Amino acid sequence: MTKACDLSAVEARRLIGQKKLSPVELMDSCLERIGETNKTYNSVVSLDEKSAKKQAKAAEKAVMAGDTLGVLHGLPVGIKDLHSVAGLKCTWGSLIFKDNVPKVDDSMVANVRNAGGLAFAMTNVPEFGAGANTRNRVYGATGNAFNPKLTAAGSSGGAAVGLALGQMPLATGSDYAGSLRTPAAFNGVFGFRPSPGIVPSPDKIAGLIPWGVVGPMGRSVEDLYLLLRAQLDHDIADPFSSADAYDFPEALSDADLSDLRVAITTDFGVCPIDKQIAKIFKSRVQQFKGVFGVADEATWDCHDLHEIFEIHRGLSYLTSHQDKLAKHRKMLDTNVIDNTERGLKLTAAEIGRGFQMQHAYAKRVAAFFEDYDVLIAPTAAVSPFPHEQLYVTEINGEKMENYTRWMALVYAPTMALCCALSIPCGVDHKGMPFGIQIVGPKGRDRLVLEVGRALEAELSRTPATRRPVPPVISG
Amino acid sequence: MTKACDLSAVEARRLIGQKKLSPVELMDSCLERIGETNKTYNSVVSLDEKSAKKQAKAAEKAVMAGDTLGVLHGLPVGIKDLHSVAGLKCTWGSLIFKDNVPKVDDSMVANVRNAGGLAFAMTNVPEFGAGANTRNRVYGATGNAFNPKLTAAGSSGGAAVGLALGQMPLATGSDYAGSLRTPAAFNGVFGFRPSPGIVPSPDKIAGLIPWGVVGPMGRSVEDLYLLLRAQLDHDIADPFSSADAYDFPEALSDADLSDLRVAITTDFGVCPIDKQIAKIFKSRVQQFKGVFGVADEATWDCHDLHEIFEIHRGLSYLTSHQDKLAKHRKMLDTNVIDNTERGLKLTAAEIGRGFQMQHAYAKRVAAFFEDYDVLIAPTAAVSPFPHEQLYVTEINGEKMENYTRWMALVYAPTMALCCALSIPCGVDHKGMPFGIQIVGPKGRDRLVLEVGRALEAELSRTPATRRPVPPVISG
Repeated sequence: MTKACDLSAVEARRLIGQKKLSPVELMDSCLERIGETNKTYNSVVSLDEKSAKKQAKAAEKAVMAGDTLGVLHGLPVGIKDLHSVAGLKCTWGSLIFKDNVPKVDDSMVANVRNAGGLAFAMTNVPEFGAGANTRNRVYGATGNAFNPKLTAAGSSGGAAVGLALGQMPLATGSDYAGSLRTPAAFNGVFGFRPSPGIVPSPDKIAGLIPWGVVGPMGRSVEDLYLLLRAQLDHDIADPFSSADAYDFPEALSDADLSDLRVAITTDFGVCPIDKQIAKIFKSRVQQFKGVFGVADEATWDCHDLHEIFEIHRGLSYLTSHQDKLAKHRKMLDTNVIDNTERGLKLTAAEIGRGFQMQHAYAKRVAAFFEDYDVLIAPTAAVSPFPHEQLYVTEINGEKMENYTRWMALVYAPTMALCCALSIPCGVDHKGMPFGIQIVGPKGRDRLVLEVGRALEAELSRTPATRRPVPPVISG
Repeated sequence: MTKACDLSAVEARRLIGQKKLSPVELMDSCLERIGETNKTYNSVVSLDEKSAKKQAKAAEKAVMAGDTLGVLHGLPVGIKDLHSVAGLKCTWGSLIFKDNVPKVDDSMVANVRNAGGLAFAMTNVPEFGAGANTRNRVYGATGNAFNPKLTAAGSSGGAAVGLALGQMPLATGSDYAGSLRTPAAFNGVFGFRPSPGIVPSPDKIAGLIPWGVVGPMGRSVEDLYLLLRAQLDHDIADPFSSADAYDFPEALSDADLSDLRVAITTDFGVCPIDKQIAKIFKSRVQQFKGVFGVADEATWDCHDLHEIFEIHRGLSYLTSHQDKLAKHRKMLDTNVIDNTERGLKLTAAEIGRGFQMQHAYAKRVAAFFEDYDVLIAPTAAVSPFPHEQLYVTEINGEKMENYTRWMALVYAPTMALCCALSIPCGVDHKGMPFGIQIVGPKGRDRLVLEVGRALEAELSRTPATRRPVPPVISG
């Protein structure tokens, strides 16, 4: 029999509404799974069992009282350790905040709770979410759900592993250069990077810097959509927030894939990608491309992508971290120091150039999406690597210029403010999860999700493209 | 009898639809008024009479053929000399572009034409729209509609004067630090600064720099709303564009002013304002504040406003103009050189600080607008001054630090991405037009317009607060 913690979020919510599953039973099942697995994988880093059970009990009471139930009612939700939950330690993976216990929820967490979600556990991150390997000096490394010696990716690594292992049915994440997507790909789950503003981020340090966005993760598109619906909001304190947040119906429709014009790229013309991984992507494309009306090999022009990314990366890191660097340098880890220092070295002229080039880039992307509904690309450039290795230093024998370069496949969409959904697509040549991303222009979130849902159904029909299940669960 | 060029845009459009006014007659009337007045005021700087008459003739033909007519059908629209109209000289007020004749319309102009508007004349600006005094080395200065020796303000100065004089029923403008508002105030017309993205600006140099926006001007709120409806669009090439552009019905409702909570400030606590102008504002407020449910003296906290403005002003000027400064320094005028050079001197650390401070500022403004529906303030800090004087150098004996400081009343809303409408409110102590601005948070555009429309009706009941008409028209 399926354990409660392995139910889909949608199914669990349905059973709760039907009084066939108690939120207490579901919470206990998640806590039990955490107890069985967390020592090995280290995905959950802060947890108050007593409070979790109390929340579940209250949710159960509301069901029994016949209260109106929110979309997440009674579902345990993992919260990325970058978002404040009142009463749970929130460290940002940083020694500076190692004892920080927020007194209030941040606005996204408050929305999750208002929808009935139980914000019960914090999931691990790299320090301040920098980089795509979930390890830090506060809690150590999170192990991949399919092999705990390998990286979970990041920065929403704890979230992805927690979902894959059944520690929680839903988890929040955030994404700058793939943080909702790369961990989803490496652990066989789903992560959605919404367009900026769809899930408002009034709590961030600079609202006008749009690269970092908050979003949902789950074990299916339908599941993560449930969480997204709770996260959606219109908040004037986020300059990118708008009425676009109202464009999401209660349930996703089925996209007619045969009606779609899809662009397919292995590398955007400029992104490093391991030859084996490229080969797998191409063979998977052969398996599914027939479902689309048009499926062309095509990309937008990315000739200055890396430069654009690095200028804006520098500006956003120094905006967020220059004060910490000045005051607490010894407590900071290498990625944050490196990126902030690179930022501080930029001249005003370079920063201006960065804004100019970004706009030209975004306009090319906008023009591209006049010809195509969505674009499909691999999510990650390599197979999961040992988490001892901080980042990918070379691909196909070519040295990577910095710790972010191997994530170019995911920052290519970010730098045009695209929305993007990573979905599992079988396993790679090493038997590790393999993921693809479906990318749309800013504001086309709903279509991207509908395409993802329909493609997920297609892929699940064939063992080679089906979502893999980690050995600890299947075995 | 009212001449066709003095009709309101709404009335002219109605008569055109009813076949009681021919677009040809209207165009001829505007051309005649331009002929009578333009030598004195210099508001229209580029005009192709033959093409204008041809456009009007085609519009007339469409009416007679019973075609479906757009919201602006047959209305002559003045285009600010910063927006490309195919076939009309577009100089940006700059010697560098003094012979530039674009081959294609920019996207906003294309939308105006699609709605039936006749883009027939270019209106004067300061060089690249820098500063609030409409004069440049290509065309010279535009004179105020009430006294041609005084400044028209800027940067949409030609537009405001053209409207006041009846040279055109509608005119486009744009606004960074008050460019749609200050000229409206100085010439007794209406200017609306929309929230960023409502009128998309895909053609600008850096989409992520949100301060400069395009908007409508007219001789009433209803008139400019007609133009706004044509300018509204959802364009993914502008990162601030969203479904918010669909939130505008065919006609504005009447706001119930007695239901509104209004904040009123003379100076936002930090903006220089001439004592006489402050006195006039306060006495006008006494006349109209009774119409509101709540009318409190209140402002948000602006302690670091000037610093925020100057950092971002520097960044946006260098982004737009650093290449021109390097290649064509001698052809540039002092405001653009000064601002670009200030920008180039910024350090990356200062720019990061500017983003951080701006977000804190915008969050204070967002919180303020939880307590108030709109805020009302004076539009301009002084009475119109001679256009020989490049900018206001001192107020109440206090020296202004730079050429933008006297515009602080209008950049205070800009720096929080607010929308703001300037409406006339009688004349000042020198008999020159006096204007007030109605400010709302980003996205509350419709309410601001509805309040403006209702307040316009209130103000028109009393001679002291009524919109003034320039002597050339009234005499």
